[in-house]
Amino acid sequence: MAELRSAEIIAVGSELLTPHRLDTNSLFLTGRLNECGIDVIGKSVVGDVVDDVKRTARAALDRVDVVVLTGGLGPTSDDLTREAVADLLGTPLDQDERVLAAIQARFDRRGMRMPDTNRKQAQVPRGAVVLENRNGTAPGLWIDVGSRVLLLLPGPPRELQPIFEEGAWPRLSSRAGARRVRRRVLKIAGRPESAVEQVANPVYAPLEAGDPPIQTTILAAPGQVELHLSARGSDVDAMDRALQQGVDALAEALRPAVFSVDGRSLEVVVGDLLADRGARIAVAESCTGGLVLGRLTDIAGSSAWVVGGVVAYDNSVKVSELGVPESMIEQHGAVSEPVALAMAEGVRAALGADIGVAVTGIAGPTGGSEAKPVGTVVIAVSAVESRTRTFLFAGDRAMVRQQSVLAALDMVRRLY
Amino acid sequence: MAELRSAEIIAVGSELLTPHRLDTNSLFLTGRLNECGIDVIGKSVVGDVVDDVKRTARAALDRVDVVVLTGGLGPTSDDLTREAVADLLGTPLDQDERVLAAIQARFDRRGMRMPDTNRKQAQVPRGAVVLENRNGTAPGLWIDVGSRVLLLLPGPPRELQPIFEEGAWPRLSSRAGARRVRRRVLKIAGRPESAVEQVANPVYAPLEAGDPPIQTTILAAPGQVELHLSARGSDVDAMDRALQQGVDALAEALRPAVFSVDGRSLEVVVGDLLADRGARIAVAESCTGGLVLGRLTDIAGSSAWVVGGVVAYDNSVKVSELGVPESMIEQHGAVSEPVALAMAEGVRAALGADIGVAVTGIAGPTGGSEAKPVGTVVIAVSAVESRTRTFLFAGDRAMVRQQSVLAALDMVRRLY
Repeated sequence: MAELRSAEIIAVGSELLTPHRLDTNSLFLTGRLNECGIDVIGKSVVGDVVDDVKRTARAALDRVDVVVLTGGLGPTSDDLTREAVADLLGTPLDQDERVLAAIQARFDRRGMRMPDTNRKQAQVPRGAVVLENRNGTAPGLWIDVGSRVLLLLPGPPRELQPIFEEGAWPRLSSRAGARRVRRRVLKIAGRPESAVEQVANPVYAPLEAGDPPIQTTILAAPGQVELHLSARGSDVDAMDRALQQGVDALAEALRPAVFSVDGRSLEVVVGDLLADRGARIAVAESCTGGLVLGRLTDIAGSSAWVVGGVVAYDNSVKVSELGVPESMIEQHGAVSEPVALAMAEGVRAALGADIGVAVTGIAGPTGGSEAKPVGTVVIAVSAVESRTRTFLFAGDRAMVRQQSVLAALDMVRRLY
Repeated sequence: MAELRSAEIIAVGSELLTPHRLDTNSLFLTGRLNECGIDVIGKSVVGDVVDDVKRTARAALDRVDVVVLTGGLGPTSDDLTREAVADLLGTPLDQDERVLAAIQARFDRRGMRMPDTNRKQAQVPRGAVVLENRNGTAPGLWIDVGSRVLLLLPGPPRELQPIFEEGAWPRLSSRAGARRVRRRVLKIAGRPESAVEQVANPVYAPLEAGDPPIQTTILAAPGQVELHLSARGSDVDAMDRALQQGVDALAEALRPAVFSVDGRSLEVVVGDLLADRGARIAVAESCTGGLVLGRLTDIAGSSAWVVGGVVAYDNSVKVSELGVPESMIEQHGAVSEPVALAMAEGVRAALGADIGVAVTGIAGPTGGSEAKPVGTVVIAVSAVESRTRTFLFAGDRAMVRQQSVLAALDMVRRLY
């Protein structure tokens, strides 16, 4: 059978044509398709309109080997992707008893009656391969159309991704030929994009001219910069070696700001460091209002190294729960290095943790002064030794908070 | 001249076909187009490939009145949108001396020499109207194609948006006729999508058949469902009345789960309720690890009604900071109604707040038992009266936490 080389992704849903929603599944799908050497040459969004779905899918099938349709597989009357595809292919929709039983069982497990509307999710275009959905009611569908493939996936990412991995990926990669794309990512905290670029640029040039050539992209988010390296070809070992050399050279040039070369997020890196050392952490938060702890406890199993913390949003809590002297707040202000350190020491002592972290700052938009403008954030870490640092972050309230969270986690990382 | 009623948006750029970048300009453009009665019926992304741009733009011109092309107007050899459009229309590209002078002046102001590559940005398809770019070198271009319009805008949002507002909007709105789109959104907490649908469906039907007809869309996220209502027509007052009737009917049918009919998020609704009553809140969080407080403090000015809280991730913190009796945890377990209530009362007393909220649960993936499976979450609110409720949330760790946050905020809302 012909190799699969090109793809288009079509997101179905009228909500994706409003000013409120973006299709984000295409990022995940593009990454995985690229990995098995399939280029995405176009993406589109259409509403819940049978004719639009049909027209767009038909045109894509004329151009590319794989057409991925996401969304419109739900139980409501808006959900028309199944019908549109059956119509396009001129095949009937059959009720699939195994799918129906799986949907029924899902409701049974929750002690709920299955609404009649869910029955339509068991309708399958004749000849389609059903891809099991462990996290929802709509199965994925793999449909061979001559030498081409039509892949239907439900819209929710937590349903789409496992179906893709378990059901679609094995089929796609076995038909994709030898061409592969390999990628590596370096993650960097606490340096602005332009500073990273300046250091990385002289390292890039020989990589891009190398054999195999490495393509580089820089991506910035508040408080974090990522360098993406990729290689294309069929000699996976040679590509991986060249990528490793590139990663090593960039990590060396950007040391110690590089916190991850293996995909791990900063909170996972910090959690792994703490778990390795059997150290437990407590956090006192003012301007971040719980977001540092929220990020740390995103990780399953974080109870092994997170004791907890105090959100001291009001100054009274800094005094009553963390033992910060009122006089210190009066003298230095709540956003000051002495107060941050007293908060870190206070939360460490109160909760019996090995490490105390504190964040106090002015997230804005109000509350700034000439001496302490909006974006001023003080972070303290109290452990065997103590560290305190004052930052001035740019951006709006959400960006200041996000940069504060990353800076606090990065100060913990740099203890080790 | 014929009224402009429908649009498609085409984003041009190979970087938008990688796993790392999304086109976000289309959200802004859709909002503004909708406001003057122009529906966006499709969106697409194509790479920097002349044939792909031509094919996609030509197909869109066959279907809709306005085709907006964004990106690909830069000075590099990748930027091909101008050439593709001139080719598609069969018109030559002329050098526009005023555009060239403006680009030259931009470089002069910065004391820089204009690179030769920038000259191509002064190439204009014959007959196009130049839309000035105050923030960059590539002007926007308005091209009448018969009764239809091709609008070219540079990709960077800070260039695109002013060009659209100043150059495109007056032309579009004068040609859009009297037709307008009006929208309303109902936000609902604590009901699954299918339950909302079942209640809303009988209310929808007469709205959709009404005059003016109301279109409805349902959008679900963990813990929250949105109903989007929209009306299209020229009698804005009649549309607004019909939408208000629809909103009222749905709010009545779904009472008391509807928390917002004016666009506000749940945390803003809760914040406004607390601010109105001069009540201040404290939160004790276990499985949500700070996310309830993080959400509440997202709002600027939340210090008026948030005192702070305790993240009692480890049981020792529930005892030491919140005064929960150890024997109670032993007898009932940390995830139980008595412990949740003791946490809520404890944080309220310790922080001197008017309202105490507590969340304790099993976010997973481990820690569940037959009696208390993963997803079991107990939420307590301690105020003038106390309330406790046990939930069983579906989904992964992140979804359980997100649903817990919304459920906790919603229990506070329902105090009033």
